[in-house]
Amino acid sequence: MDMQPPYLLFLGDAPDQLAAKTATGIAYWRPEWCLGQLRLPDCRADLGLPDLTLKEAREAGARTLVVGVANRGGVVSQAWLDTLLHALELGYDVANGLHRRLATIPELHQRAAALGRRLIDVRHPDQPVPVASGARRSGHRLLTVGTDCSVGKMFAALALERELRRRGVSATFRATGQTGVFIAGGGICVDAVVADFIAGAAEWLTPANAPDHWDVVEGQGSLFHPSYAGVSLGLLHGTQAECLVMCHEPGRAHMRGVPEYSLPSLSECIRLNEQLGRLTCPECRVIGLALNTAALSEADAARALAAAEDETGLPAVDPCRHGVARLVEAMPL
Amino acid sequence: MDMQPPYLLFLGDAPDQLAAKTATGIAYWRPEWCLGQLRLPDCRADLGLPDLTLKEAREAGARTLVVGVANRGGVVSQAWLDTLLHALELGYDVANGLHRRLATIPELHQRAAALGRRLIDVRHPDQPVPVASGARRSGHRLLTVGTDCSVGKMFAALALERELRRRGVSATFRATGQTGVFIAGGGICVDAVVADFIAGAAEWLTPANAPDHWDVVEGQGSLFHPSYAGVSLGLLHGTQAECLVMCHEPGRAHMRGVPEYSLPSLSECIRLNEQLGRLTCPECRVIGLALNTAALSEADAARALAAAEDETGLPAVDPCRHGVARLVEAMPL
Repeated sequence: MDMQPPYLLFLGDAPDQLAAKTATGIAYWRPEWCLGQLRLPDCRADLGLPDLTLKEAREAGARTLVVGVANRGGVVSQAWLDTLLHALELGYDVANGLHRRLATIPELHQRAAALGRRLIDVRHPDQPVPVASGARRSGHRLLTVGTDCSVGKMFAALALERELRRRGVSATFRATGQTGVFIAGGGICVDAVVADFIAGAAEWLTPANAPDHWDVVEGQGSLFHPSYAGVSLGLLHGTQAECLVMCHEPGRAHMRGVPEYSLPSLSECIRLNEQLGRLTCPECRVIGLALNTAALSEADAARALAAAEDETGLPAVDPCRHGVARLVEAMPL
Repeated sequence: MDMQPPYLLFLGDAPDQLAAKTATGIAYWRPEWCLGQLRLPDCRADLGLPDLTLKEAREAGARTLVVGVANRGGVVSQAWLDTLLHALELGYDVANGLHRRLATIPELHQRAAALGRRLIDVRHPDQPVPVASGARRSGHRLLTVGTDCSVGKMFAALALERELRRRGVSATFRATGQTGVFIAGGGICVDAVVADFIAGAAEWLTPANAPDHWDVVEGQGSLFHPSYAGVSLGLLHGTQAECLVMCHEPGRAHMRGVPEYSLPSLSECIRLNEQLGRLTCPECRVIGLALNTAALSEADAARALAAAEDETGLPAVDPCRHGVARLVEAMPL
């Protein structure tokens, strides 16, 4: 599932900025790969990138058209289809983050096959992964885990990769969700893997590496989420992470999507992740906390971070406000 | 994925009895559904059922030909294909437990479609299941869990269903693996569900029911298995089981398929299942133990059961040797 940058980001007819969330993430983390954006007439999202036609971006070197937007009702409209077909003709691969597989649309499939282009449906792994072996392997791994879904696990992992590299540490962000896969140019959407292969997918994604190398793995879900905990556990076991970073959004009223379920405390979430992680990596421990305080004032954010440090005895940062230097300093480098 | 009994069991060219393990399970638990067996000339398995031709079994009332055998290298030979095509012509549905999907073999697919027959690939769920809601629902649920894979979780669940019904308790075995699905005539192979939907599949499989009804759910894997724990956790969360039965095979040298991993103790496995199960069902507790002592002498089996009872303070039985009456007596009926 490797994608070739540079990208042209297709926003289609996104009704608002949130619908272009994936594209926003790519433009934020990989500006050097994003030559421009392509918007249909009624698009209401804007990444602040140059508006380029397919032809202009192709001439500027773009190799992949990225569908980084949610579409209405899962339907690929004629306007979208015309754009994607034209992109194939101009020499683009098309990488798609929709649930709907582009490869199952006969017109697209035939055109891509005839032209030798690739349709990359990132939500649908294109290769079988093995069952996890549980065998120890060389290299280091850090996994971002969370009290809940959508608390900033991808953001924290990318910030850690950047900070590690800045310090000259060999580090690779490993993507497990669609936005992460576009940002990394590869990876696997773990939530779309067949259940028996979750841990195997995590092993495949983070293979044996040089003794001083760090894979920084994007976590998914939460061990405390009644819908997704199995994914989180498979990922925890498969990565064999010796370091965990616990991600959290202060102030959530309940677990995402399930109002009957309240959030675990940081301490109890740390304890359970360490306990279960030690099955495959006896050294597994949480080295710090990444709090998403975007909804808080500067003063409230400072209070939330101080409270989290008091409760856990671990360094706590908001990666977006303060960077992750203090987390990297807590790693056994 | 509902199948219509009675069945004719197709053993193909099974090289030994073990290759016909699925068919053996069906014949053991549902003798009243199994009119006979159909074997190709070089078949070395024998279920002790009458050898019937497709025509004979059909005339005796068989409605579904069950492919309950492992085939060599995943290849469907011409001899198999001829048999399956002939079955469709005679009016059978064909239910298949192979990894290989019959519905992807064009000749079979076309013939079935033309004749209005069904090809039921039980390893591949044919309908989307929802994401788990975590919402409490009426009715009772018991889940068989295990220290490891292949320790007798299906057998224990079926024995419990039988014993509950014998006592006049409304109870339904819920199948989560291929052999169980054939035995129940329906269910879902949970290990083949996409990761985000494991708990949702378990909720779908055990819907709200009468207040005095028990669903007895076949567990999968083990929370201590580094390859499959995610499946076990999703199933535990999704079933919201108030009763667990811990299944175990005394004397295993290591976890199945992963020699570096030793088995957990019964106590630690009980503790972790109860701890994690309480996320979605606060009453969750292990009510007894089902030991598979097939490899032991009568005296050694008795010693193993006594030791397990001493360690845990819970009733321990071998469902095959002694039945599960003592487990049912420990349920809050």
